[in-house]
Amino acid sequence: MAAAPVWSVDPRTGKQREQVAVEATAQEVDAAVRDAHAAREALTDRTVRAAFLRSAADELEAARDRLVEAADAETALGPVRLTGELARTCYQLRAFAGIVEEGDFLGVVIDHPDDTATPPIPDLRRYKVPLGVVAVYSASNFPFAFSVAGGDTASALAAGCPVVVKAHPDHPALSELVAKVIRRAAARHDVPDGVLGLVHGFDAGIELIRHPLVAAAGFTGSVRGGRALFDEAAARPVPIPFHGELGSLNPVLVTEAAAAERGEAIGAGLAGSMTLGVGQFCVKPGLVLAPASAAGDALLKSLTDAVSDTGPGVLLDHRMRDNFLAGVTERAQLPDVESPVTAGAGGEHTVSAGFLTVPAERLTREGAHDLLLEECFGPVTVIARYTDEAEARAVLSRLPGNLTATVHLSSEEAAGQGRGAELVRELTPLAGRVLVNGWPTGVAVAPAQHHGGPYPATTSTSTSVGGTAIERWLRPVVYQGAPEALLPPELKDDNPLGLPRRFNGRLER
Amino acid sequence: MAAAPVWSVDPRTGKQREQVAVEATAQEVDAAVRDAHAAREALTDRTVRAAFLRSAADELEAARDRLVEAADAETALGPVRLTGELARTCYQLRAFAGIVEEGDFLGVVIDHPDDTATPPIPDLRRYKVPLGVVAVYSASNFPFAFSVAGGDTASALAAGCPVVVKAHPDHPALSELVAKVIRRAAARHDVPDGVLGLVHGFDAGIELIRHPLVAAAGFTGSVRGGRALFDEAAARPVPIPFHGELGSLNPVLVTEAAAAERGEAIGAGLAGSMTLGVGQFCVKPGLVLAPASAAGDALLKSLTDAVSDTGPGVLLDHRMRDNFLAGVTERAQLPDVESPVTAGAGGEHTVSAGFLTVPAERLTREGAHDLLLEECFGPVTVIARYTDEAEARAVLSRLPGNLTATVHLSSEEAAGQGRGAELVRELTPLAGRVLVNGWPTGVAVAPAQHHGGPYPATTSTSTSVGGTAIERWLRPVVYQGAPEALLPPELKDDNPLGLPRRFNGRLER
Repeated sequence: MAAAPVWSVDPRTGKQREQVAVEATAQEVDAAVRDAHAAREALTDRTVRAAFLRSAADELEAARDRLVEAADAETALGPVRLTGELARTCYQLRAFAGIVEEGDFLGVVIDHPDDTATPPIPDLRRYKVPLGVVAVYSASNFPFAFSVAGGDTASALAAGCPVVVKAHPDHPALSELVAKVIRRAAARHDVPDGVLGLVHGFDAGIELIRHPLVAAAGFTGSVRGGRALFDEAAARPVPIPFHGELGSLNPVLVTEAAAAERGEAIGAGLAGSMTLGVGQFCVKPGLVLAPASAAGDALLKSLTDAVSDTGPGVLLDHRMRDNFLAGVTERAQLPDVESPVTAGAGGEHTVSAGFLTVPAERLTREGAHDLLLEECFGPVTVIARYTDEAEARAVLSRLPGNLTATVHLSSEEAAGQGRGAELVRELTPLAGRVLVNGWPTGVAVAPAQHHGGPYPATTSTSTSVGGTAIERWLRPVVYQGAPEALLPPELKDDNPLGLPRRFNGRLER
Repeated sequence: MAAAPVWSVDPRTGKQREQVAVEATAQEVDAAVRDAHAAREALTDRTVRAAFLRSAADELEAARDRLVEAADAETALGPVRLTGELARTCYQLRAFAGIVEEGDFLGVVIDHPDDTATPPIPDLRRYKVPLGVVAVYSASNFPFAFSVAGGDTASALAAGCPVVVKAHPDHPALSELVAKVIRRAAARHDVPDGVLGLVHGFDAGIELIRHPLVAAAGFTGSVRGGRALFDEAAARPVPIPFHGELGSLNPVLVTEAAAAERGEAIGAGLAGSMTLGVGQFCVKPGLVLAPASAAGDALLKSLTDAVSDTGPGVLLDHRMRDNFLAGVTERAQLPDVESPVTAGAGGEHTVSAGFLTVPAERLTREGAHDLLLEECFGPVTVIARYTDEAEARAVLSRLPGNLTATVHLSSEEAAGQGRGAELVRELTPLAGRVLVNGWPTGVAVAPAQHHGGPYPATTSTSTSVGGTAIERWLRPVVYQGAPEALLPPELKDDNPLGLPRRFNGRLER
């Protein structure tokens, strides 16, 4: 049987551009994983890891024009956005280099013997070691930042784990290019090519998650695909951690006072956030609770104007376009749902943005309208008009887990008067990131960032963005009674590497 | 249909002592979980949590005599061991009170806005919040330390999570007693009874893991039972973290030089460790790689003497006794396996300790002897005699994950001469705790402790003992752009609670 070809496709025309590769066979997946496994020793030295990550950023920047062009040809995301995304990807690689050097992620804890404890404490020295080969399933919508050289890969390499990436079929040519660039950076530090494997094909993705030498996985994508892989990871003879980011509705609550104070601005801001990147962000606001009042009407008027002014856009692929059109149509046909601006087919290959409205009351109990509580990928959002706050809260209480939850408050509420603090507290169980008077699109790379949330937002309690993303690829090990001469330098009393640690109970920084 | 009775059984006679309860129905499990869920607000205040944990320790100590008597009647573990285990349990509760007060577990990270970052960083403030109701499946072999008031419960309460415990059928009466004591402690701080639910019955355990309001689970027990519950947790519509400690062989490698230097002492130490608590520890050394040399013979001679001198003991229940006897018989019948001291039935209700030997070569490839690489709960161990170190390493490379791995080195090797450091490094992938010149039984409660390891030792990368056990029951949340007035005190700039944190990238302690 001939190997299945992997084509690069132009989403602006739906036409095949070139054959990039063939889908990986089980044997090829096995070879990639074994090569990665063999490369892990080369990542033992943290100095090498940090230097490799910085070189990766340098090499990506050096290849910027070619990479942005390749990415645009396969994703239609446009050079401005893609240049920014590449810059973010490089920033992220360098941020992880800094994290590797600081070493706080090692979680060093040293306890000297203590005979007064119950039971007595022997000499114990703990730190974290890399899990092993990490499988990374890259995303359609972030060809740089959540793909071959994205956050999962950067954090795994930072942790000392080699990576095998399952390329997303929406940008196979770019994936090959980026992998080559990263391997060039690896070679500069004598790290073997195998440190970054790349495979194409749906079946290859299944083989990968089942491979005995794969120790953990990161995923960004749909609920359906992510859950299938999560189930595979859990069903293995030796289950492995599966850190998947699956789907999110990203609810927004606009208080009556906020709508009264700046309804127009909120409507315009919402239009910008929900249409950004043609609505293809996992943090797109997909459900907005707005008051059924004159102030709410003003918000909708502004939203209508701004969305109407938004030009058509190209989605990442034609399957996505079909799903978007079908999803919008199905939602629009529900009773009491209106379409002030109809989202739909723009031209033959484009879509136009729109939004739906529904009385919030329709969402307070199980029924056909529950479809509105499911993510619809693309430039559309649902405005649920509430008559009082209890109704809005009843809707919020029915939501599945989210990456983000947002509240728009008036100046007085934001200053602590009224129910501002209470609303922030009430949104907290819903999401991993809670925003006040902002929009969830745009996920900063920062130490405090948390990009994750209750299922199905993520399949674990971890984050895929920010400094703590490295924690996903490590496991602790403690040495008991090991003489100083046998200890790794990270665990020696005199702390030759200057690591932050907990020493005999006390935090040292 | 009448509810199934739950009996307290005396393992010394196999006779029923009293009917303690009835197995919980689905409705009763639901009620326990809902009561626990309702109690979570009472745990919001960290001051209350710390005080509650200390009161729990105080109340357990006040009830010590009655508790130890009740535990001994159902487990036959003896008052000395049980008094020690209760002391350890109280120590652990107080240690978590200290951890709650210190607040480092909250993982506070604060980033002020930074427009120079790519993309720009808004105001971000992250900390960890409790997951919700935790299901705890208690262990047979630690009626205090890994049961109703054990490490899972203590760490969950410390995290702010109410608990519903599935009682172990080996000590239902004690479980009821301990639950009452903990609830008395809760009442002293106006924490409702529901904060600690207790249910009996196998089916109740399944209902519990499936309950939509259960947010995470802790388990200590067998591979079979633990895997079944892990699978249930993963198959839920909303999967939840399952932190299970399932099984471990706890390999020990004795170098030729160590055997030559102190073979007799090692043999005696091994006898003590493998027969401690009638071999009913999850960290019992179950496979010992000893040299097939004169020095190894001396080790075995000493082991033979010490094990022969060990009196018979009562196992926790009769099913365990049956499994032990069958397991020993099946192993002893394998080709080339010898029984220098035959483990087996002592009296009608007791068992006697013993050990088996096998040429290590038999374990270097797949075959019938793989049974020897499976845990056999009770006072028996397997000594694999190796002819050279390569053979010993070939056996080690075939082992599943372990809680512990131990190496016995000579003084010179321990001082850094020869292959000491290399062996420690080679054992690290095998286990969560690596010991040098010690025995794995005895798991200290300490900040650095890690009681976990690659599957099947544990189903996650977490620990069930030590300060970091609290991390299992938390998830991060980040607030973006929230005005100071709306922030919880943990995240305010001026740090009114004096928490350790990362502030604008810098670690503050």
